[in-house]
Amino acid sequence: MSLIKIIEVMAILVGAFSGFIEARSKNMDVVGVFIVAFITAFGGGTLRDVLLDIRPLFWVQHEEYAILIFFLSLIANPLIRTLREIVSERLIVVADALGLGLFSVAGVAAGLHAHMPLFIASMMGVITGIFGGVLRDIVCNEIPMVLRDGKPYALCAFAGCWMYLLMEQVGVNPNFALWSSALFIFALRLLTWIKGVRIQ
Amino acid sequence: MSLIKIIEVMAILVGAFSGFIEARSKNMDVVGVFIVAFITAFGGGTLRDVLLDIRPLFWVQHEEYAILIFFLSLIANPLIRTLREIVSERLIVVADALGLGLFSVAGVAAGLHAHMPLFIASMMGVITGIFGGVLRDIVCNEIPMVLRDGKPYALCAFAGCWMYLLMEQVGVNPNFALWSSALFIFALRLLTWIKGVRIQ
Amino acid sequence: MSLIKIIEVMAILVGAFSGFIEARSKNMDVVGVFIVAFITAFGGGTLRDVLLDIRPLFWVQHEEYAILIFFLSLIANPLIRTLREIVSERLIVVADALGLGLFSVAGVAAGLHAHMPLFIASMMGVITGIFGGVLRDIVCNEIPMVLRDGKPYALCAFAGCWMYLLMEQVGVNPNFALWSSALFIFALRLLTWIKGVRIQ
Repeated sequence: MSLIKIIEVMAILVGAFSGFIEARSKNMDVVGVFIVAFITAFGGGTLRDVLLDIRPLFWVQHEEYAILIFFLSLIANPLIRTLREIVSERLIVVADALGLGLFSVAGVAAGLHAHMPLFIASMMGVITGIFGGVLRDIVCNEIPMVLRDGKPYALCAFAGCWMYLLMEQVGVNPNFALWSSALFIFALRLLTWIKGVRIQ
Repeated sequence: MSLIKIIEVMAILVGAFSGFIEARSKNMDVVGVFIVAFITAFGGGTLRDVLLDIRPLFWVQHEEYAILIFFLSLIANPLIRTLREIVSERLIVVADALGLGLFSVAGVAAGLHAHMPLFIASMMGVITGIFGGVLRDIVCNEIPMVLRDGKPYALCAFAGCWMYLLMEQVGVNPNFALWSSALFIFALRLLTWIKGVRIQ
Repeated sequence: MSLIKIIEVMAILVGAFSGFIEARSKNMDVVGVFIVAFITAFGGGTLRDVLLDIRPLFWVQHEEYAILIFFLSLIANPLIRTLREIVSERLIVVADALGLGLFSVAGVAAGLHAHMPLFIASMMGVITGIFGGVLRDIVCNEIPMVLRDGKPYALCAFAGCWMYLLMEQVGVNPNFALWSSALFIFALRLLTWIKGVRIQ
């Protein structure tokens, strides 16, 4: 399995796992757990593709991820318990930061590929990175955390998307632009987390 | 009027009626009553068609249903009172189970027709069957009931969708597959309701 | 700058401004302020275009509006304070009524242009006029105000959309139909506001 595939699976699993936790904290049943996890993992990319009118959707092309989340939902309770014991919060933040970087950069590249103007492309990147969590919180009847917790989560994605756009404009090798921007988002997210940076 | 037309109208009316009740319980005005009823009746199928990129939408092709709900909204208050007097809760559950069966099977068939892989097609069936109610609850600022009430509502739809997919794969007559699967969902929903089956 | 451009900018700014206020009342950070303002300003037209499968979206074609809201979000706090001092509530209602008229009539015209049946076209007009606010309230975890405050906001839009449709059917000059209907919605909204008209 290639590196990008591993990161992709990790990003989706982290999204699904945060959905499991929020759904269970709302006393949802297994149906709710699956649907909330699915929305968290794929909601951002799906909204982007609907706005850009791109089909097929990612999870339609990769049915295996939907099936994986389905089976994980059936064991969500022991899964959450076990993971909480063997996985530190630190690792979850790291995996989530990786997911944010990868999803956001994939989103801005998709926006550019669909001939969006630059600012709109950067918005597509941020939407892909954060709207899974926004939709999760809406379904769970909460004000979306990313809109109010004062942590520069979306701003890290935004900065990395512009780094990608600038590199792309000046003709940097596309693969290098993609990977370095994702890495930049990842590092910036971890740095602001460690430093406890707050925005207003 | 053919049998399928009658069931279709019943399913839509049951959806609209559940929208009337929830909107009124939130003290919405006539605009809210119409919009919530409309979303409940058509939200699931509309979301499916947006995800599959299918147009025209059902309610665009059948303007008469939107107009019907519009006029019913104007008399929602006396309508709710009257129906509560002359219609037992039992009949509403029966009609709703009929709607669940019909909507879900229509959804999985649409997914298959759009060349979705099997698991995704089954998800399209469940989305069509339950997301009207999910969107109704989101607009009414509630955690969607179907995600947390512990009743195997979505699971009945899911089981029936797979029954349809299996019959379709082994070459059963399409019409028979359609009707028997809808009937199966209907019967399974009623049975689990009577028995008080709960999931976690 | 032409008159229609000025009104368009005003309508979008009024939408964004109402988003600023609601986001700040929920203690959102700058990311939340931008996203809620953006959804309020463009949500209605975006939902209409997704339902009608029209691309590119308005804000994709006019990137400058998204950028404008982005920079205004950065100064939302002093902006809200300043505007509250120098702009009376009356002017905000007037600008909002102008926006309602313009957005709704643009929506019904888009529906007609996409060959929708008449009632559906009128719904597209109302969706364009009011769903920005509906989505704003959903993201902010409130029951949408337009569905429950008993003011005939959506009904003014609905009446004006039908005025447009009737004029269009009898062959009135399209531009005249457009402007007089928008003016009608604007006037009707102000009149019902002044008179304090309530619906149930």
